[in-house]
Amino acid sequence: MPTAALGLDLGTQSARALVVDLATGTALGAAEAPYARGTRTDPHDPDVARQHPLDHLAAAGAAGRAALAAARGQGPVDVVGIGVDTTGSTPLPVDARLQPLAGDPRFADDPAAWAWLWKDHSAKAEAAEITGLARERRPHYLARCGGTYSSEWYWAKVLHARRVAPRVFAAAHAWLECCDFVVAWLTGAAGLAALPRSVCAAGHKGLHAPDWAGLPDAEFLAGLDPSLAGLRARLEGPFAPAGRSAGRLAAAPAAALGLAPGIPVSVGALDAHLGAVGAGIAEGDLVKVLGTSTCDMAVARLDRLPGIEGISGIVRDSIVPGLVGFEAGQSAVGDLFDWCALGLSGAGHEALQHEAARMPPGASGLLALDWHNGNRCVLVDPELSGLVVGLSLQTRPAELYRALVEATAFGARVILERLVSGGVPARRLIACGGIAQKSPLVLQVLADVLARPVLVAGAGETCALGAAICGAVAGGWFPDVTTAQRSLCPAPARAYAPDPASVPVYERLHRLYQRLHDAFGPRRGALGDVMKELLAVRALARRAT
Amino acid sequence: MPTAALGLDLGTQSARALVVDLATGTALGAAEAPYARGTRTDPHDPDVARQHPLDHLAAAGAAGRAALAAARGQGPVDVVGIGVDTTGSTPLPVDARLQPLAGDPRFADDPAAWAWLWKDHSAKAEAAEITGLARERRPHYLARCGGTYSSEWYWAKVLHARRVAPRVFAAAHAWLECCDFVVAWLTGAAGLAALPRSVCAAGHKGLHAPDWAGLPDAEFLAGLDPSLAGLRARLEGPFAPAGRSAGRLAAAPAAALGLAPGIPVSVGALDAHLGAVGAGIAEGDLVKVLGTSTCDMAVARLDRLPGIEGISGIVRDSIVPGLVGFEAGQSAVGDLFDWCALGLSGAGHEALQHEAARMPPGASGLLALDWHNGNRCVLVDPELSGLVVGLSLQTRPAELYRALVEATAFGARVILERLVSGGVPARRLIACGGIAQKSPLVLQVLADVLARPVLVAGAGETCALGAAICGAVAGGWFPDVTTAQRSLCPAPARAYAPDPASVPVYERLHRLYQRLHDAFGPRRGALGDVMKELLAVRALARRAT
Repeated sequence: MPTAALGLDLGTQSARALVVDLATGTALGAAEAPYARGTRTDPHDPDVARQHPLDHLAAAGAAGRAALAAARGQGPVDVVGIGVDTTGSTPLPVDARLQPLAGDPRFADDPAAWAWLWKDHSAKAEAAEITGLARERRPHYLARCGGTYSSEWYWAKVLHARRVAPRVFAAAHAWLECCDFVVAWLTGAAGLAALPRSVCAAGHKGLHAPDWAGLPDAEFLAGLDPSLAGLRARLEGPFAPAGRSAGRLAAAPAAALGLAPGIPVSVGALDAHLGAVGAGIAEGDLVKVLGTSTCDMAVARLDRLPGIEGISGIVRDSIVPGLVGFEAGQSAVGDLFDWCALGLSGAGHEALQHEAARMPPGASGLLALDWHNGNRCVLVDPELSGLVVGLSLQTRPAELYRALVEATAFGARVILERLVSGGVPARRLIACGGIAQKSPLVLQVLADVLARPVLVAGAGETCALGAAICGAVAGGWFPDVTTAQRSLCPAPARAYAPDPASVPVYERLHRLYQRLHDAFGPRRGALGDVMKELLAVRALARRAT
Repeated sequence: MPTAALGLDLGTQSARALVVDLATGTALGAAEAPYARGTRTDPHDPDVARQHPLDHLAAAGAAGRAALAAARGQGPVDVVGIGVDTTGSTPLPVDARLQPLAGDPRFADDPAAWAWLWKDHSAKAEAAEITGLARERRPHYLARCGGTYSSEWYWAKVLHARRVAPRVFAAAHAWLECCDFVVAWLTGAAGLAALPRSVCAAGHKGLHAPDWAGLPDAEFLAGLDPSLAGLRARLEGPFAPAGRSAGRLAAAPAAALGLAPGIPVSVGALDAHLGAVGAGIAEGDLVKVLGTSTCDMAVARLDRLPGIEGISGIVRDSIVPGLVGFEAGQSAVGDLFDWCALGLSGAGHEALQHEAARMPPGASGLLALDWHNGNRCVLVDPELSGLVVGLSLQTRPAELYRALVEATAFGARVILERLVSGGVPARRLIACGGIAQKSPLVLQVLADVLARPVLVAGAGETCALGAAICGAVAGGWFPDVTTAQRSLCPAPARAYAPDPASVPVYERLHRLYQRLHDAFGPRRGALGDVMKELLAVRALARRAT
């Protein structure tokens, strides 16, 4: 009977589960389940994006059960550990017993009681406030998150909820990152003291670091809102890296998954970080998780943590325990292509990719900024917006599609250059995630723009594999994540080499991209207020109706 | 039996004909006929746009015949004069007997022997060359055309033909503006000496002015290319304003139209200029002909002609004889909406307009530059391109559509402000052309952006009516164009008043438009080279394939 681990990966669109044979690394079974209620948006506020926490549990159960059933199709399987990742920062309010407020009939339909999805940008003002206060009083906090606290992150969202949904805030005992919430369900943790929470999520999204003994201090939080200091006190308790056991599988989730209770469950982590683990990340690698948005993950063995302006997160133990994890990213990649192929032109990905792939670089005359969903790195500004220049009456949807693909590659180059100049080695580039599997166009353009080879991770579902790896480590099957990776991560599947004819064209276009980036991006740019002013006009116009 | 005039209006898409009752101004019959071969483009060069000159004649004959047949449905009609307008500058090569080279089997399929449509921008380099030489040696030429000679105009196109199609150029006795070519056909003029050519077309497109005794001097032209001086010598002969008789209807076109030979035919003119006449233009008016592109026409009684930087043409007698005609314009308006509704989104005008019309100004957060086909005024630069900023993942096609409508209105405001600051009164604003008939959205946005009422011309087919007016004057029925206008032009059909709630929003957005305009537009702008560099990259990329 093969020994296996179960990885649960709760992404933006659906939950995926993977059962991995720990002797061979083979996938014994895999499955996917959607979130019944999907993502809840607000027609009056494009910044809102929420998901129902019970959908997460139901989808995790369904996907896990189906993956195990598939694995058992070939005979019985001995599951020795379970790992979990989710999107983040995706906080949600829970009561003292870690039950979601959204499950309480009083709050079931209140979007503030749902999980605030990572791409929810409604807390822009609070993010700016946190950045402002930290700049003044706790500059060392900002050094770890690129100089700017993001509206995508835990404290901004919680503070925003405090202001716009005081009833929900008052009813909440605590706010959990989604990955901790799923682990709480799996282990049946009855309270925060019994729930080792994710250093990955807390470190990258919640300003948690050993240097200042965990979460940001109460005095700082009280400067934002006195109630946050109270919340902080309730949040005290264990934090640990993924791979550490958070407890054992409880009866109810065991029944949902079709497993026996008692199996060790790993501490949770963010999906991109375990995606990097599943992609086989090691020191000197940069792993790009290419999905609706993109995360750039790197690890380095460092005694002192550097601060790198515009790099979202620098957190010890957050990816591979023992190493410092670096996270950067772009707030829209796949979403941007969807917008073009489905929202704007309706022509669909296949037709547009087919046509776009045959165009020589530069032939469309177009250049775009990939900021339709703001800029996560290196400008860290959600109030930036998309731009396209070079349009003509002949411009076709496929040309725009390609220009957006190129824009995401130019954005990736800005991040790579910033990481390297900050001392993070990025000798090997590995792509993973849905787009890495599906779009040779995106990978080739990336290789051409970065002027270096781009490898594609050997595993298809790197996030779920990373979760399974942590499950196997938590279950004691491997001594540590690095050892487990060596056994379970397949070698890169393919490599895209830069096309020598394209590299100089993109070199030229990247210079223009950088100039638009600098003109429209930083507040000191010549046109740095234009996008802000448009948002201000938009807000006024929408308020008037 | 009613006395009538026939107006022939050869637009970009089709020829229209109108039979007007000269006692009442009533339309007795109207018809339209397409150009059999449409517009010929070049997949390798988006700047090329050609039409076959024989298509123009066939369509003029078919439309005229059908309009007359419709008029005669109510009884016999006495046609006392014929007027003609066409697009321009749309030059085509002819032999000494004014027959088109495109009718010669040796050249029938050579696009250089076809008519070079106004929106053909293949002569960019030559236009820049003409501007450069004139700036150095004949600055007074440039003062009349806004400081820059356009790639859309006669001498640039002819010089480009000389270089890229030497065989066609050598075979051509002369190059005629399309309106003169149609008049030559109607009157059977056997040579240039027998063909009074349009002061409107020659003045606005060919640097023709009484101040320097007609066409640009031979020495200047020889400085561009010696062969142009030879061409100039052959072009000598009469030039006259529309309304003056160019001759009498010859037998062949009479047969095509179903008329008796001998009817007086007016000297030709450009479509926009006669559109202004049909819209009832008088001193103090600005007439906007809103079509695929837009022409802004104004007339003023002036002894000395001012130079206004960026205003395409300042020509005596070009619109209403006795007054100075001013022409400005935008190189893509309806074309821009087509691009969005048909080329990019495929949703069609009706659906997008319906949705866009209900959006409050500023609610999309978008801002666009209306330069997809370059900028005709006030930057006079065909190498500018379209830009959209403020895009988000929620941006819908209808929002982009509205942003493009707004962009054309912002562009219109730049032109209006330049005209007014140059001393051209523009107290009353009259819109005409297809879009003025069809799109309340465009007119309301225009009124809101300009913060003044926009009237809609009473006549539907103002260009054809203007042509009929000139036909009636040429036939001696009215002493002059102004008198004929008073009898034949109906009062404005409707007025769009600016919405007081929208005006301040657009005031704010227009300031942003102006900043993007100034940053990307003039060569001294901070990003003034970006669009040029993109075109340079595009040209290289296309050459490589």
